[in-house]
Amino acid sequence: MQTRLDMERIRAARRVIDPVFLDSPLYRCEALEPVLGCSLNIKLETANPVRSFKGRATEVVADQLARSDSRAVVCASAGNLGQALAWSGRHRDLDVTVVASRFATPAKLDRIRALGATLELVDGDHELARQRAAAIAHSEGIRLLEDSLDLETCEAAATIALELVPCLEPYDDPLRPLRSADRPPEYGRPVVLVALGGGAMATGIGYVLKTLTPHVEVVCVQPHGAPAMTRSWHQRRVVSTDTTNTIADGVAGRHPIPEVLEDLLVVADDAVLVHESSIITAIRLLHDHAGLIAEPSAALGIAAVLEDPARFADRPVTTIICGSNVDQTKYRNWI
Amino acid sequence: MQTRLDMERIRAARRVIDPVFLDSPLYRCEALEPVLGCSLNIKLETANPVRSFKGRATEVVADQLARSDSRAVVCASAGNLGQALAWSGRHRDLDVTVVASRFATPAKLDRIRALGATLELVDGDHELARQRAAAIAHSEGIRLLEDSLDLETCEAAATIALELVPCLEPYDDPLRPLRSADRPPEYGRPVVLVALGGGAMATGIGYVLKTLTPHVEVVCVQPHGAPAMTRSWHQRRVVSTDTTNTIADGVAGRHPIPEVLEDLLVVADDAVLVHESSIITAIRLLHDHAGLIAEPSAALGIAAVLEDPARFADRPVTTIICGSNVDQTKYRNWI
Repeated sequence: MQTRLDMERIRAARRVIDPVFLDSPLYRCEALEPVLGCSLNIKLETANPVRSFKGRATEVVADQLARSDSRAVVCASAGNLGQALAWSGRHRDLDVTVVASRFATPAKLDRIRALGATLELVDGDHELARQRAAAIAHSEGIRLLEDSLDLETCEAAATIALELVPCLEPYDDPLRPLRSADRPPEYGRPVVLVALGGGAMATGIGYVLKTLTPHVEVVCVQPHGAPAMTRSWHQRRVVSTDTTNTIADGVAGRHPIPEVLEDLLVVADDAVLVHESSIITAIRLLHDHAGLIAEPSAALGIAAVLEDPARFADRPVTTIICGSNVDQTKYRNWI
Repeated sequence: MQTRLDMERIRAARRVIDPVFLDSPLYRCEALEPVLGCSLNIKLETANPVRSFKGRATEVVADQLARSDSRAVVCASAGNLGQALAWSGRHRDLDVTVVASRFATPAKLDRIRALGATLELVDGDHELARQRAAAIAHSEGIRLLEDSLDLETCEAAATIALELVPCLEPYDDPLRPLRSADRPPEYGRPVVLVALGGGAMATGIGYVLKTLTPHVEVVCVQPHGAPAMTRSWHQRRVVSTDTTNTIADGVAGRHPIPEVLEDLLVVADDAVLVHESSIITAIRLLHDHAGLIAEPSAALGIAAVLEDPARFADRPVTTIICGSNVDQTKYRNWI
């Protein structure tokens, strides 16, 4: 399997990531199963200081920088990466700059500021923020952290999958975290549903699962309102879009990165698009039946099951609740 | 320190509890700190199959029963213990009966039924359910699981405190789960705020902390609407009440158990009462600033800080979010 990712580096990433981000909860959520028609495991990446999985990546990057001569870093972010980089940089005395769209979720921007990073807002979308971050890095000669392009972001996200593997292996594995009696009967092929944006999480998790549990289907999920990477995956070439229109701010890119697409073509079994209404229903179901607050990007997996129940019927489904940083006014409307 | 609890049994409990309940998330929640005026660590006991800490206790009890000749058990429950006992009993083929008030939170009762337990409702409050459960156990000759009286429930809850100890120890402890840089400066004496109902969690956690980290203050929190155990603690004798009136259904007992009170007098530094309005504010703050759904009993610690900010100002506060099983209609009103 030819990708940019490397299993040894992924295992090494675990050793530098603060334990507060590792070994996040993984459990069966039976209350949602009758609604979804499948069995459901939840991997919860929100019970940590930055309420998203991005801390895994920024820990790796900040650890590198802290060991180097360069102690300044800039990234573009829809909010979660920036918040995590601010957190990881703060206690290593790094100089962190985050560039974000002025239309980003205000709660995420507030947290970036509160964590002591310099926040620069651009009058455009995430792609403009990416350009601006690159310009800052170039003019100031500092590290540019590019989500999904920089391998650390993919390989750190891949550590999530290392933690999934035991529950995806056959029942007789003595190391499984879920005891056999609480695991649903495996009527069908296990499937892991991963939110797809820039591709860091999807390529990272896909790489580990395809390497260690090749029987597991890896399905990426993106909103119809931000379909660039999914279209690219299906056409096997980079397809950009002119605009995005989705509540799932965390995955709303327009210009897929060629190297990431190459990896995704190797490790993903499918990429599907879901409607905004399904994302909102998924958010509400997670609230009502699982007691979880999920941001829209974190609800994409559940939305995919809602849109194609026949495909997932009676199968063991695992999805990653990858963030909970929501705008509270919008959230109250969604639920 | 003379109590009924035993550290070796507490450590042994960890070995029979399903790992899905152990090592729950523990992290600093900075977003709430400016609102509360203290530093705040959250111990999250809701990211598991039964959405409360009660699974720790029922795992220990169900493990005992599965090794014995008696495979039937009955308990009274406000909902969380019954749900957890149903879960633990199901995959050990135990015959589980749960007695609850017909005024219990419907979502909790639904989950007890869904997990395959026999549910019997009584036309009264939790104290009547306790009497009925005892009568069933007596007439059928089966195990009665009595929350807080049965040592397993206290010692299993005490395993939570074993997981807290590393973050309460001095900064130079190499085993701490939170790296020093993410730990707030310790301006004052660390305090752990524990919801107080029957007393299982409070005595369990108090015992471990007083044994291993005696410098930590242990403060129990109960609603004014269900003050029996708090009054008993202050008067050093059992004080019952005629009624309860609180949204915190999980802690709404009227008749404290003498043996539990004896233990609580040894291990708790204080017991305080909070108003319903503070509990609701705490629920809303946890929702808005921490992204967490907490049932009323789980919000008691935050409510205590809200009611007495001067007492906790600038101190390192740790609280246990012990359950998230809420009535969704009520919850939407609270937030």
